[in-house]
Amino acid sequence: MRRRNVKNAHERLINDSLFVLDYESYQGKWNTLFNNDNPIYLEIGMGKGKFIIEHARKNPNINYIGFEKYESVIIQAPTKLREQNLELPNLRFVCADAENLEKIFGENEISKIYLNFSDPWPKKKHAKRRLTSEVFLKKYEHVLDKKGTIEFKTDNMELFTYSLITINNEKWTYLDLSLNLHSREEDIITTEYEDRFSAKGNPIYYLEVKK
Amino acid sequence: MRRRNVKNAHERLINDSLFVLDYESYQGKWNTLFNNDNPIYLEIGMGKGKFIIEHARKNPNINYIGFEKYESVIIQAPTKLREQNLELPNLRFVCADAENLEKIFGENEISKIYLNFSDPWPKKKHAKRRLTSEVFLKKYEHVLDKKGTIEFKTDNMELFTYSLITINNEKWTYLDLSLNLHSREEDIITTEYEDRFSAKGNPIYYLEVKK
Repeated sequence: MRRRNVKNAHERLINDSLFVLDYESYQGKWNTLFNNDNPIYLEIGMGKGKFIIEHARKNPNINYIGFEKYESVIIQAPTKLREQNLELPNLRFVCADAENLEKIFGENEISKIYLNFSDPWPKKKHAKRRLTSEVFLKKYEHVLDKKGTIEFKTDNMELFTYSLITINNEKWTYLDLSLNLHSREEDIITTEYEDRFSAKGNPIYYLEVKK
Repeated sequence: MRRRNVKNAHERLINDSLFVLDYESYQGKWNTLFNNDNPIYLEIGMGKGKFIIEHARKNPNINYIGFEKYESVIIQAPTKLREQNLELPNLRFVCADAENLEKIFGENEISKIYLNFSDPWPKKKHAKRRLTSEVFLKKYEHVLDKKGTIEFKTDNMELFTYSLITINNEKWTYLDLSLNLHSREEDIITTEYEDRFSAKGNPIYYLEVKK
């Protein structure tokens, strides 16, 4: 994703109550932030937030946390919400690196993780940085509850191939898989990137797994 | 594959020494047929034989058995061999149903199984007939040796999707996978069907696994 330099991104972020700044202090007690015991779904790499906002709007009984590493990207999500006059008590944003997932969430605290159009890190020497590498899969296993699942979408054939092999060999169970997700006759909540890419007629790959 | 009615197919087959007719009597001792202890590779659904003939020609130190259910199809393989003036002591044909695999081969007797462009059996009620169903995977596990692998190619997206899920859920290890095999810069031995299909620019899916 192209990242523009956004003016005052950091200042706007620390002054916006939609962002959780002291996220490490909620480890193991995110339910206290949402004030209920609903399941918590996480999107890692939420970008500008279209996907997670639409999910949160449609599912008020699920709590959503959008994770994004870049301030200049995530700062655009509150604007989207306000443009639509949305107030969603079940949605919060965290600007952090997924590297630190286990410091931010407790064991079994998360019920679903979405990985949408993650950076493919095409060079082999960067394979460990891919969000479907063994390193990250172990972190997801730690924070997911026993029935927890990962849903992964990408348009990148090399990343999908790598992910199929890695996730299989780490002994996760495939629940659902598509080599052309948009050919399904169902409503699919998309990301900004997905809309642009799919409009060109290219396939979207999809995989859902559990440990 | 379209099957023509081939005149005298049965008569020609039983009179051709390339075909092993009393195949059940070789269970556990196929090495005596080939007169050596070289590894045995099996192609299930060999069709007219282009793929297995080319393999056998290139690899004289591997024994090949071509399996095919239909007499009218497999009977065309000897013609191909003779047209090329090939005599291959490391290649034999068996006209039989893969259902009976465990009666024909002993435990650990096979080192590799090729499944090329198998019938997709698209209806859900026929899923068990697909050559990558749980039923068949258990048979392959029985006859394959400890390092034995399966190599699977198909152009059928639905069959490939089904196979990825099934093979994962049966806890096989993925060794290699491609969503566009012919984009690789290497010599690929193809089947008749594969050549026709690939010429249209459609992707060939490929998976190699071991238990």
